[in-house]
Formats: sequence, C-alpha cells, structure tokens
Amino acid sequence: MSVKSFYQAKFNAAIDTVQSEGRYRIFRDIRRSKGSFPTATWFKDDGSQSDITVWCSNDYLGMGQNACVVEAVKSAVDAAGTGSGGTRNISGTTRYHVQLEHELADLHGKTSALVMTSGYVANEATLGVMSKILPGLIIFSDEMNHASMISGIQRAQKIGVCEKRIFRHNDLADLEAKLKAAAPDAPKLIAFESVYSMDADIAPIKEICDLADKYNALTYLDEVHAVGMYGPRGGGIAEARGLMDRIDIIQGTLAKAYGMIGGYIAAETAIIDAVRSLASGFIFTTSIPPSTAAGALRSVRVLKITPEKRKKHQERANALKARFRSEGYDFIDGDTHIVPLMVCDPVKCQAISDRLINDYGIYAQPINYPTVPRGTERLRFTPSPDHTDAMMDSLMNALHDLRTEFSLPQQKWAAGKVA
Amino acid sequence: MSVKSFYQAKFNAAIDTVQSEGRYRIFRDIRRSKGSFPTATWFKDDGSQSDITVWCSNDYLGMGQNACVVEAVKSAVDAAGTGSGGTRNISGTTRYHVQLEHELADLHGKTSALVMTSGYVANEATLGVMSKILPGLIIFSDEMNHASMISGIQRAQKIGVCEKRIFRHNDLADLEAKLKAAAPDAPKLIAFESVYSMDADIAPIKEICDLADKYNALTYLDEVHAVGMYGPRGGGIAEARGLMDRIDIIQGTLAKAYGMIGGYIAAETAIIDAVRSLASGFIFTTSIPPSTAAGALRSVRVLKITPEKRKKHQERANALKARFRSEGYDFIDGDTHIVPLMVCDPVKCQAISDRLINDYGIYAQPINYPTVPRGTERLRFTPSPDHTDAMMDSLMNALHDLRTEFSLPQQKWAAGKVA
Ligand SMILES: Cc1ncc(COP(=O)(O)O)c(C=O)c1O
Ligand SMILES: Cc1ncc(COP(=O)(O)O)c(C=O)c1O
Repeated sequence: MSVKSFYQAKFNAAIDTVQSEGRYRIFRDIRRSKGSFPTATWFKDDGSQSDITVWCSNDYLGMGQNACVVEAVKSAVDAAGTGSGGTRNISGTTRYHVQLEHELADLHGKTSALVMTSGYVANEATLGVMSKILPGLIIFSDEMNHASMISGIQRAQKIGVCEKRIFRHNDLADLEAKLKAAAPDAPKLIAFESVYSMDADIAPIKEICDLADKYNALTYLDEVHAVGMYGPRGGGIAEARGLMDRIDIIQGTLAKAYGMIGGYIAAETAIIDAVRSLASGFIFTTSIPPSTAAGALRSVRVLKITPEKRKKHQERANALKARFRSEGYDFIDGDTHIVPLMVCDPVKCQAISDRLINDYGIYAQPINYPTVPRGTERLRFTPSPDHTDAMMDSLMNALHDLRTEFSLPQQKWAAGKVA
Repeated sequence: MSVKSFYQAKFNAAIDTVQSEGRYRIFRDIRRSKGSFPTATWFKDDGSQSDITVWCSNDYLGMGQNACVVEAVKSAVDAAGTGSGGTRNISGTTRYHVQLEHELADLHGKTSALVMTSGYVANEATLGVMSKILPGLIIFSDEMNHASMISGIQRAQKIGVCEKRIFRHNDLADLEAKLKAAAPDAPKLIAFESVYSMDADIAPIKEICDLADKYNALTYLDEVHAVGMYGPRGGGIAEARGLMDRIDIIQGTLAKAYGMIGGYIAAETAIIDAVRSLASGFIFTTSIPPSTAAGALRSVRVLKITPEKRKKHQERANALKARFRSEGYDFIDGDTHIVPLMVCDPVKCQAISDRLINDYGIYAQPINYPTVPRGTERLRFTPSPDHTDAMMDSLMNALHDLRTEFSLPQQKWAAGKVA
C-alpha cells in the first residue's frame, strides 16, 4: 500500500464511524441579510435557494444586525484597516483592545479583563494554564461543562500536576462530597456554567460559591450563554443574582448575545496578569482585529443601557414556551431563553429538521451526540426579540403537521431537567 | 488566610517569577491608521501620544489597509451583519465560509480546506485530533515548532495514544535517525514549518518529503509565515518549490500576509472531513464572521494575481538586509522577508526597543524568551512593501546611535542559523 492509501483508509474509517453513529454533519450553507434576521437565504446542494427563518442562532438578541454595532465595525475598519497584524505583545494591542478590556472589567465589577480570540480559547487557555500557576490543583468540573472547558482541563493535566473531579450536573451534594474528600490544603477550582445552553437550566451559583468558601476553592464561571442577556447591565446571571463579587474568574463570549466574535475572562488584576503572561493560547496568536474589538465594545455598551431588549427577549422565549406547553410538547421548560424540544432519537431529529427546512422554511439544526448525550437528541429553538408571533404561528403549524408522523415524545422532560 | 489571599499569593508569585526572569511584558497600545501604515500612533502610559513607524508587524504586505480588502469587509458587514451567530454546524456556515474554503483548497492544489478561528486553533485542533484518527501515532516535531503545534501535539497525547519525537531544527540526519528507530508499521506524521518566523530560515521541504515517503509518514506543514508571500499565486514555499502535492496537510493563517484573522488547513477531502467531524477546537466554537471570511477571500484572490507585491516585499527585505550587512550588524541573513537583529540579552533587548520608540519613533518589539531561546533575544524587523527608503534611513541612523552605547554583538549569526 502506498503512503497515501495507508492513511487514506484510516481517515475514511474515522468518517465511516461518525456516519454509522448517525452523527455525520452536513453544514447548511446560509446567508443572513442584515436587517431581515431571523430571515435568511438557504443555498441548497442542488444550486437553488430559498428563504428560511433561522430558529437556532446564538445571535440571541440580533445584535449582529444592530445599526450601532455595524456602524462601529465599519468606522473602525475605515480608521484602522482590517487585521491587527500581530499578537498582543508584538504590535497587536490597540486602543480598541484596551478600551474593550476596560469595559468588560467594568461590566463584571472586576479590576481587569483579558480578551481572547474566542470563548473556546478563553476557556481552554485559562483553565489550561491554571496547573502551571497552581501546581497540584484539583479542578471540580460539572459533568455538563462545555467542550472548551474540558479541553482546558485536559491541557492543565498535560502540562502540569492537576486532578479532575467531575461532579453530577448542578448537584451540590455530590460537589460537596468531592470537595470534602480532597486534601484540605490542595489548591481547588470549581468550573461551571451559569446557563447550560443545551439543557436551558441555570446553576445554583450562590450555593456553589458557599461551598467554594467552605472548602477554600476558586470559582470559575462560564457565562457564555448569559452575558448581554441577564442582569441589569447584561453582566450575566451572576450580575442578576448579585453574585459577581463571589466569582473569581468570569468567562464570556462576544460571539453570541454581543453579535461579534471573541471571548474573554474578567477577574482581579493578579489573576488576569498571570494568565496574560503565561497562557499559550493567549500569547501566541494574532489578536482580534481592531474593528472586532470596536464592534464588541459598542455592543457591550449598547446592551448595558438597553434593558428593554433583554425584557423583550424573555417575553419572546416565554411566548414560545407557553405555546409548547399548551400543546403538550415534550420540551425543557426552564427559566432561560433557550427552548429545547426533545426528540430523543438522532435519525428522527435529523429527519424532522430536514422536513422543517425543506417543507416549511424553518431552520432548526438537530442537536445530536456529541453535543448532547445519546438518547437526548433535540431541536433547540432560540427565539430572539426579532422572532414575531407570525413566525411562531408558522413554527407551531409545522410542528403540528409533523407531530404524529414522527410520534414526538410526550411531555416527560417538562420538569426542566435532563436525566 | 482567606480564600482570596491564599490564591492571590500564588498568582502574585507566578507574576514575580515572570518578572524576575525579565520576561514580563507590557503591551504597547497603538493605533494604526488605514492608508498610512506602517506609520501609527502610540498611546503612552502618561496619556500623551506620538507617531511611530511600525517595524514589527506581521501584516507583512500591508493587506490590512488594502482598499479592495477593506471594501470586501465593509460590504459584507452591510449585507450580512457582524457575527455569524453560530458554530459551523448550528447556523454558522455561510456562503462566505464555503467560498473561502473553496478558494483555499484551490490555492494549495487540494480538494478541500477547513477554516478555523485562528492559525493557532488550526494547528492545535488538527494535530490534537490526529491521535484519535490514527491511534498509536508518532509525531516527529521540529524542535523550533510554534507553540500552537506543540499544544496540538500535547492534546493528541492527552486524548489518545501518541508519542512525540523532537528532531533537531531542520536536521535531516536527526529526523531520519528518529524515523528509522520507530516501529515501521506505526502511523507517523512529520510536523514542521516552512518559514520559521523567528529565525528567518526555511525548512528543507523536499528532503523532508523524501524521508516521509521512505518511512511512510504523513507530512504536516505550517506555512503561516509564507502564504500570500511566496509562490506564483501566494501558495507559500511549497508552491514556490513545486512541492504542494507532496504535503498531506498544509496549514496557514489569514491573519498575517492576508491582513485579516483566522486560520485553516488544506488537504484531501477525507482528511478534511475527518478533522471537520472530530476536532473539538473546530466544532465547538462560533465560526468567523461572514465579513472576515469575505475579507480573507478577497485578500487571497488579490494576492493570487498580484505577484508584484511579493516582488516588492522581497526587494524591501533585501534592501534592509543589504544595509545591515554593509554596517556589519549581527543579524540573521536568511532567504526570507524577516530580518532579526541579534541582541542576545533580554534586558538590553528591551532597553534598545524602549530607546528606539521613545527617542526615534521606531517600534520594534523585543523578542525574548519564551518566544525564542534564552540568550538569543532579538529585535525582529519585518519590512513591508510600504516601508520606504527614508524609513530605512531613520532606522539605520537610530541603530547607529545606539550601537556603541549598547555594544551590539558583531556579525556572528550571519550564517543564517541560530545555535
Ligand atoms: C458554554 C460554552 N462555552 C464556550 C463556548 C465557546 O464560545 P465561542 O463560540 O465564543 O468560542 C460555547 C459555544 O460556542 C459554549 O456553549
Ligand atoms: C508558525 C506559526 N504558526 C501559527 C501561528 C498562529 O497563527 P495565528 O496568529 O493565526 O493564530 C503563528 C503566529 O501567530 C506562527 O508563528
């Protein structure tokens, strides 16, 4: 066998496995049009195109088409050009980056913040470097934590001495048992999320902080699905609950509610300075473009002063949940803006999604393993302030049509928790 | 001690170590102005500001201010808004992403390409997933490989069975000895760069490919500091040397010569599809904004058809090297566009950089450990097509002034290799 075919076979085998598990993904090619989101154009494989309503975007508040944000991006491109041209240390720190970091620190009531290229990188780089700073660290990680946190913890274990203890999702008793069992003098960190985006539930932040105090642990909170959307100024669930000062490291993204791209952490200056100085994923990469920083800055500022957008967002989510409830659909009826409709079968989930987009122009991507556990496949709806009643009517009609055909499960997840 | 102060002390200690090693970094806050790069504004800590010439940008060709690229970004923002609003699988794949990937595949003569959020992530995610696809993989890694490749290999080792063998920089005999010593039937991958950006030297790509054939190994080539700048269409050193078809995976960035942000790999479809389906750092993160993809697409296309920009770039680099040579400076006199002036002392390197920017308005960031080995500290100059003779005159005059004061070393690195 030639070099190429020896490896070719292995790559093919990897794809076959993914396919045989029903989790091979075909990316839908769409084009959003500024001003008409959540309406978009779908480019089909056969070359034709059609209008769709996007029901699965994480541009939760439609800030990606906000006139003020668009203007900030364009005028920064006009002023400063496109790329930053360097890592943060080598000519890639601009006014825009500095101002954005000040703004984010202020948003979370911390003394400093550090912007990275994505929320993923912020989690991976920050958690990844913790074992270097805190040798012997034990990280207590919620079992539903995002892939980026898992990857960061793996990195921490690879480059330093670090143990991982996984606690059951939002389970305080299990967390406490694991904290208690650990050596009292070992450095500890509890890593968790505020809003779990696939289950639409919220962590008991205060109680976790109480445990952190009791067992002398740092707290690391991923607010990716909450910043911009919760709290009087959009500071997230910790802000809404008055708990920001009890979280040591708050992590967030600029790519969801803020409608841009990039991620960050906010914390006290010593923490930020250590991460800034030591984290590979922060140091050795080109900084975000000036215009990205400018757009994010604008978006954070706009959302700080626009609580009515958050109100409308919740109202829309509640409207959809009310409809699902009155129809007796099996969905996760939580306290957040995310509305997951349970299908519990990967093939069916894909098939319903295909029918929705083909026959009804409704785009809801199937959420299958590995994003969620097998057997809990779902369609995840994210109504934004721009989703109208008429759009909800169309969605309900479509689901009504498909309900019997696909024998959608009855209301068993309704309690708001999975498993 | 309270929770906070227990940890505070540890974070402070980490920073103290960095400081005591003379590698604490203070980021210079600058503002580029579109149209006048490499001139920029420097915002000093005391609140004042002054004009500087940037000599250390990786916007190598000044594409960050190219009118055509700027226009592509702005018109895509107008058309599609700012962020993509989703991961590639969940509403984050747009026309722009699809077209960019086609263009990059074509650039490198491959059947597919995959865009990621940065060159760092492209290396980390791709190398990181290889042990999952090729269990028992042995990765042969050049000792000077970039942090992102090192991080990817660490990830491969953490999540799968994978061994790492580091070979001496560009040393074919050492590489061959290590290939020979490995089990013949184990999957193997040789990871290296074309242009090593800190040493300004180029790998013996053909000879490495010959060894790969002989020992049945895959080749993985980081062309981050070459794409856009070398080869008839900007396909990099492998294109320039007619070797693209001998490289299995070509990795590049959109953030340097292309003046944007983002990274990618190009390879045969089975490889791309496996990485696309399995690599965490690709799957679980928001895709680059449509306008970033549009700007990168434009930039790749412009540079494909603009060889005179590459010619001018080389001419400028050669002009600076000729000046350094005739003055007998100790610099790395290689075949690339990068001109590292050796200082070989971290404190001196910082001091010269400070004097250059303060007294002469010349910005060249000191390159110290961990970016380069200790004792090889340098000022790294990257002349772009926009660096004029007058700017070179100023630089030479400044260096002349500082030469005696800092007793800059004499021409010992001139052979073009470090160590
Ligand atoms: C909980 C969580 N954290 C982090 C991320 C990564 O953020 P980003 O998309 O900015 O990389 C995501 C999703 O993308 C997420 O769901
Ligand atoms: C050799 C090499 N590979 C990869 C990268 C990362 O690329 P990016 O800046 O796009 O993350 C860099 C520098 O940043 C580099 O020098």
